[in-house]
Amino acid sequence: MYPKVFKDLIEHFASLPSVGPKMAERLVLFLFKKDREKLDDFSQSLLALKNLTVCQKCFNISENTHCHICHDKQRIQNIICVVEDPLDIISIERTGIYRGLYHVLGGTMQSSGKSEKNELKIPQLLTRVINEKIEEVILATNPTTEGDLTALYLKRKLQPTQIKITRLGRGMSTGGDIEYADETTLSSALSNRKEL
Amino acid sequence: MYPKVFKDLIEHFASLPSVGPKMAERLVLFLFKKDREKLDDFSQSLLALKNLTVCQKCFNISENTHCHICHDKQRIQNIICVVEDPLDIISIERTGIYRGLYHVLGGTMQSSGKSEKNELKIPQLLTRVINEKIEEVILATNPTTEGDLTALYLKRKLQPTQIKITRLGRGMSTGGDIEYADETTLSSALSNRKEL
Repeated sequence: MYPKVFKDLIEHFASLPSVGPKMAERLVLFLFKKDREKLDDFSQSLLALKNLTVCQKCFNISENTHCHICHDKQRIQNIICVVEDPLDIISIERTGIYRGLYHVLGGTMQSSGKSEKNELKIPQLLTRVINEKIEEVILATNPTTEGDLTALYLKRKLQPTQIKITRLGRGMSTGGDIEYADETTLSSALSNRKEL
Repeated sequence: MYPKVFKDLIEHFASLPSVGPKMAERLVLFLFKKDREKLDDFSQSLLALKNLTVCQKCFNISENTHCHICHDKQRIQNIICVVEDPLDIISIERTGIYRGLYHVLGGTMQSSGKSEKNELKIPQLLTRVINEKIEEVILATNPTTEGDLTALYLKRKLQPTQIKITRLGRGMSTGGDIEYADETTLSSALSNRKEL
């Protein structure tokens, strides 16, 4: 029913996460109607993505063998913040507060039993902690069951090195609503209360 | 903070409708992580979209000067179904019930006063109705304020030709819920009730 070109592109968009077939149709129609001059650029950008790689040290997205954070000698060299995903680094960098290094695990351990453990960059983290004389590891996996599980596992693995191991603070989100906060969040907020 | 390549592609995705900056980040990360071998295909498909054009007769998306529906001599040649968008044609074709021709308006008249009237393919529709000896025009604009307004306007324009002018039936959607139906829909369903 569609011209083949149209159908192919719809399939490409529909294969992306959170894009359903209907949304894919609308995206392609949008590109067809409004942004034809941008198609070259878009197409080029997609191809350029192939030139990106992962940092061989921290597994962040990188243009070279080492990412710009690992390259930056101004950064504190003996703290590592462990995250699940490269996008988490972006969020943490936006705060401007953290000046140490990162380590991207590439996911979490699964509570369902079937473990992604083997694909996670845990051995590489342990090697770094020893070789780079790291003094603190911040476990910044997500505050979810899987994230907590992974943090606990990492804590056990890191304990023999006797370095400082911390986890991101838990409590109310800024702008949050106590009335609608879930019990776990509120419990954390209460036990982590601070004197004003 | 991102490599430039990454940032460019995020901007391209974020410029699409219903894709926010956060979703764009996730889409690009997904493509980076999982589908690198598909990037060539995706990129090619985007470029190929430039080869598509609109049918010079009915303004449907087409690979040639005339779309496959206008080309098909098996189709009933004296009924035109007027739709807002090429995607509406796909939906109507899926029913398999309609065997006539189409005419894509390219939008609706705006109830807000500022009219898209000049950009709509209304003059072309009037010319077709006369030149192609059309006997019925089905006004299949959306059942919204703008769609209804456009249908009324078209009805007035078409009335001098004295052909049959119809509008899609209105009532309950199949699978709908009377309890949650809005008043207008339920009113239409009641007045369009049929003997069993």
